[in-house]
Amino acid sequence: MSGSRTVVRRRHDPESRGFASDNYAGAHPEVIEAVALANGGHQVAYGEDVYTEHLQTVIRSHFGARAQAYPVFSGTGANVVSLQAVTDRWGAVICADTAHIHVDECGAPERVGGLKLLPVPTDDGKLTPELIDREAFGWEDEHRATPQVVSLTQNTELGTVYTPDEVRAICEHAHQLGMVVHMDGARLANAAATLDVPLRAFTNVVGVDILSLGGTKNGMLGGEAVVVLNREAVGRMKHLRKLSMQLASKSRFVSAQLEALFGGDLWLRSARHANAMARRLYEGVREVPGVRVLYAVQANAVFAELPREVSERLQKRYRFYFWDEATGSVRWMCSWDTTEEDVDSFVAALRSEMAN
Amino acid sequence: MSGSRTVVRRRHDPESRGFASDNYAGAHPEVIEAVALANGGHQVAYGEDVYTEHLQTVIRSHFGARAQAYPVFSGTGANVVSLQAVTDRWGAVICADTAHIHVDECGAPERVGGLKLLPVPTDDGKLTPELIDREAFGWEDEHRATPQVVSLTQNTELGTVYTPDEVRAICEHAHQLGMVVHMDGARLANAAATLDVPLRAFTNVVGVDILSLGGTKNGMLGGEAVVVLNREAVGRMKHLRKLSMQLASKSRFVSAQLEALFGGDLWLRSARHANAMARRLYEGVREVPGVRVLYAVQANAVFAELPREVSERLQKRYRFYFWDEATGSVRWMCSWDTTEEDVDSFVAALRSEMAN
Amino acid sequence: MSGSRTVVRRRHDPESRGFASDNYAGAHPEVIEAVALANGGHQVAYGEDVYTEHLQTVIRSHFGARAQAYPVFSGTGANVVSLQAVTDRWGAVICADTAHIHVDECGAPERVGGLKLLPVPTDDGKLTPELIDREAFGWEDEHRATPQVVSLTQNTELGTVYTPDEVRAICEHAHQLGMVVHMDGARLANAAATLDVPLRAFTNVVGVDILSLGGTKNGMLGGEAVVVLNREAVGRMKHLRKLSMQLASKSRFVSAQLEALFGGDLWLRSARHANAMARRLYEGVREVPGVRVLYAVQANAVFAELPREVSERLQKRYRFYFWDEATGSVRWMCSWDTTEEDVDSFVAALRSEMAN
Amino acid sequence: MSGSRTVVRRRHDPESRGFASDNYAGAHPEVIEAVALANGGHQVAYGEDVYTEHLQTVIRSHFGARAQAYPVFSGTGANVVSLQAVTDRWGAVICADTAHIHVDECGAPERVGGLKLLPVPTDDGKLTPELIDREAFGWEDEHRATPQVVSLTQNTELGTVYTPDEVRAICEHAHQLGMVVHMDGARLANAAATLDVPLRAFTNVVGVDILSLGGTKNGMLGGEAVVVLNREAVGRMKHLRKLSMQLASKSRFVSAQLEALFGGDLWLRSARHANAMARRLYEGVREVPGVRVLYAVQANAVFAELPREVSERLQKRYRFYFWDEATGSVRWMCSWDTTEEDVDSFVAALRSEMAN
Repeated sequence: MSGSRTVVRRRHDPESRGFASDNYAGAHPEVIEAVALANGGHQVAYGEDVYTEHLQTVIRSHFGARAQAYPVFSGTGANVVSLQAVTDRWGAVICADTAHIHVDECGAPERVGGLKLLPVPTDDGKLTPELIDREAFGWEDEHRATPQVVSLTQNTELGTVYTPDEVRAICEHAHQLGMVVHMDGARLANAAATLDVPLRAFTNVVGVDILSLGGTKNGMLGGEAVVVLNREAVGRMKHLRKLSMQLASKSRFVSAQLEALFGGDLWLRSARHANAMARRLYEGVREVPGVRVLYAVQANAVFAELPREVSERLQKRYRFYFWDEATGSVRWMCSWDTTEEDVDSFVAALRSEMAN
Repeated sequence: MSGSRTVVRRRHDPESRGFASDNYAGAHPEVIEAVALANGGHQVAYGEDVYTEHLQTVIRSHFGARAQAYPVFSGTGANVVSLQAVTDRWGAVICADTAHIHVDECGAPERVGGLKLLPVPTDDGKLTPELIDREAFGWEDEHRATPQVVSLTQNTELGTVYTPDEVRAICEHAHQLGMVVHMDGARLANAAATLDVPLRAFTNVVGVDILSLGGTKNGMLGGEAVVVLNREAVGRMKHLRKLSMQLASKSRFVSAQLEALFGGDLWLRSARHANAMARRLYEGVREVPGVRVLYAVQANAVFAELPREVSERLQKRYRFYFWDEATGSVRWMCSWDTTEEDVDSFVAALRSEMAN
Repeated sequence: MSGSRTVVRRRHDPESRGFASDNYAGAHPEVIEAVALANGGHQVAYGEDVYTEHLQTVIRSHFGARAQAYPVFSGTGANVVSLQAVTDRWGAVICADTAHIHVDECGAPERVGGLKLLPVPTDDGKLTPELIDREAFGWEDEHRATPQVVSLTQNTELGTVYTPDEVRAICEHAHQLGMVVHMDGARLANAAATLDVPLRAFTNVVGVDILSLGGTKNGMLGGEAVVVLNREAVGRMKHLRKLSMQLASKSRFVSAQLEALFGGDLWLRSARHANAMARRLYEGVREVPGVRVLYAVQANAVFAELPREVSERLQKRYRFYFWDEATGSVRWMCSWDTTEEDVDSFVAALRSEMAN
Repeated sequence: MSGSRTVVRRRHDPESRGFASDNYAGAHPEVIEAVALANGGHQVAYGEDVYTEHLQTVIRSHFGARAQAYPVFSGTGANVVSLQAVTDRWGAVICADTAHIHVDECGAPERVGGLKLLPVPTDDGKLTPELIDREAFGWEDEHRATPQVVSLTQNTELGTVYTPDEVRAICEHAHQLGMVVHMDGARLANAAATLDVPLRAFTNVVGVDILSLGGTKNGMLGGEAVVVLNREAVGRMKHLRKLSMQLASKSRFVSAQLEALFGGDLWLRSARHANAMARRLYEGVREVPGVRVLYAVQANAVFAELPREVSERLQKRYRFYFWDEATGSVRWMCSWDTTEEDVDSFVAALRSEMAN
């Protein structure tokens, strides 16, 4: 080949970090390395490559011999493919009214999947058998979309974590009623790190049927996987993934990233670190007068209430989001690359702004 | 961080290449380099990063000051977002019956976009005003889905290329009838290389309203872009991309790849090379007795008819696909990394097998 | 014509009536008469007949010179056509969580219309500006389906009625926020009878943009109409009706029924009567010890709590439904053909069963 | 009740008839009579009434002991409910490119059902095993929507009729390939009248799995039925009907009409008459110089080519449609109420205009 060389430039400060979201972080160097190793030569496209094949072994090491992984592009994609896999055209999905599928996917479940959502208010983002019962009825009534799935988020959008026993109770209840259980695990690794148990302990072992397994927020360039835990419960996964526009042509690169994360302990190292930073942040801010932490800090997020003007001044130095515009509450997220210095200097800044 | 290091391994032969598809090829090293440079630190997610911002400048350098780029995950995603952007709920899309949107997307246009396709048979994959007229009627008739878009593929699925004048004639015809024109440019670079004109010369300059701009097949890890050329024609692009599950959270990495390709001449170098290899392949096989080349070789594909058993023997040494199971015709694709040696040894193998 | 005559037989007792639903009632004789008059000879199909044309005059007499009526088959059809008419592909609908569109349409809004619903809990089935604000935000946020419509039900599923001022306040609030207002008027006539004002007084005059106008429950064989009150707000109605499978071929018969109802005062006579019967029922049961009426009786429904076993004994003599299986509450509906004797004997039966 | 009496008026000439469409005709008096008999008193709504129950007996008398009827509103509704019943989310439907589902339903199959259509060009509107094979492949290929249904139209949109043997050959072929067969029988009665065999002889007996059974065009006010012939092939019909907005609340009136038609021989008398009138019309026009009849006249339609200006003059006296704007061909439809005088005077007028 001839011609002028592309001038690729870095256009951002690689030392700048904030508390806005774990997907503001970049990719872990081991992930980049895995992508480079998977490069070169030809590999069959559309999921028939050796990296996707090997990924199955990796996933089975976590979720048992019958688990199957279907890499996809995004968390929304993972959720909508999963939910279509376990619903008929008349099916409905019971979820918390804070669930990502209800509030953050621009209606993709409804528009792409034709899914009916039955959102239930909760105190802390967590469903219970009792809360599920508010919408779990009308199985034969054609006027009502049939509840066929309970969708849990682990950890929840409010940073809380279901225990294995809580998930088990929900799965048993759902199964008794003829429903299956989906888990939106965009931050599943953080939950495992908190619970200090294997991933399987609060998924397939306690009855979860299908899983959206997060990768991006935990250090990938981009990519998630639908993990089928109960093969009897699902339709034709490859077709559902393709028609939902979630099939990568050069699939080896998504699978190699997932292997980099889950083939060793990178997933756990990264999640433990992010959780520890959130814990450190919590310890730092809990004592600051005027700051109220809102939910149990069980993963990599801290939610707090503080004076709006303080938040606004802080936002000039650190990126983070208001969580509820009405109340002025905020969310601070830690990620795999958050440093102790990041946390400490943020806490100091908060203390300083609160004192003004 | 502590813990055991992930063992990432290469699981394939990086020197093995075939003629199955341009998406069997990996990523160009300059693309990998761009991803690494975009890594590190925090960047706003979901398309608000500086790489996506800069990509706009790159795209405008190709398609004029009013062009807007919306990076997406896949070619199917680019097409379905594009088509939704220019249709009402009652709209229909006129396309060749060989179009990717009709034959290769598992019904995603219909299922995700609710789109009605009006496929038209063609000789060589190319529409004409006359062929469009077979389905371009019934504008007020509520019983008929309203034809609102003509979708062209450049280059076509049969390896043929529309000239700028041909595209212009179609655009003028479509616009006169009140329709807009979409171009599926999964291999747009190959067409530009063949025509030896700028990308704009057969897109916005001649009237194309919206474009699916290919990246993956031309050397990216994965990623395409919807390029809006006529802002008046489209709906709210960001919402359509999100609800179609085509919004990357760590968007900087998709945009950085697109910049690596289109910010310099990598797109053109790669496409010219792939086309030249297809030309070399064509020159090599055209004289082989018993092999019939089926369409004009205008890009990076050669279609041919030869005895099925010869193809099957060849497939044991080189990967490629049967194109039409009924007739036994085959497709041979070249890519940015195909070498002259790859081509020459393949031609020699073909000659040898034909002689048996 | 020759051949044996069809043996058409009456298969039910035309004197048997209950309190299950106003759509258990048959058609008013004047409606049947109108159908017979519209019969004979040929009339253009699919909405181009003279009866549909004349219906426009009838509808304009109620809703003003700019109103347009589009007859459809069913209430669900009217709602889903209406809501599609005022939403983009990324639009969402704010409604009470008791709304028919959320609980009684088997997900048709989501599945047919691709609509995202944002249900809000209410005390009595009625939205307020404050309740709407719980979901009215995120106008530019592509992660959130854009709230574009507020859907009210008049009268509500709980038998309560919005006053014109209440509707006006909601419309002003919605319009200020850039949203439009849909009214599900499956029982609009009953609300007008209660309020004792013209239909326009709580629809177009106070800002409602589009209306599902009920016919079936008020004495038709079957049929409703979408009434467009704000032409600027809507898309191409005829196409939306057809693609939603709500276009009758022999449309004259739907339109003639609607004219029978709304061309004179049949709609009002029937609704007043049904309301009066519900009032009579309420007066009869309110004093019965152990029976608690649940909501204000403002239309043709009475909701009550009483011992479940009493309800079950009563159901052997009169058809009616449990409203909430969990609490054992029941719904008693009156219709255009309910008689004073029906009510009085029911009240007597209730008294008698309560005394057992 | 009190109040002014509705003034219902006849607004059309009940003696005026044309050749535009069989749905320009009104309802047969026996149908009106059946509706009146079904009126009065209360009946359970939404398909649980005694008329719908009895309809099952009627339908079983035609289609065997395992047939089940689900009344719906319209032919489009019947088709889209049927096709959803026999497809997965990834399914596709092979049909003639003249099929009503492809050309006359404003994309409802795609938009409501998410269905992918695979239209095949035909000579006379009739599919064959060979034509089906053009699209019957790719069963495991996730890039291709999976062909799961063959949809036939009987009689076809071109007035041609499949023989029982032809349907049998198609069904055997489809079943061997793992597909099911749907028949769009909007004019099924006309086909039976032509073939002079029972309805079952070219439906369930020869392998059709699911049927859209026409009622409206054959003399009803409005209504059709989905008839399930192969219970193993279908999903939950009642839910599909409801979510497709095809469930009538006062269902007794649709079912009573269907009983009026199919409970005796009204369906056959009416269809035979319409066919005979088309035959008479064909005999009258075939000899007129300059008029060319286009397809075999096997049901109640005659298609012809004649000078466009003659057609336009004729249209001032008799309503009928151009079939193909490009060629100027026309369609003349007869209906259950077409008289011999209607035909004879039309033929005379045609002769006269052709002579000018």
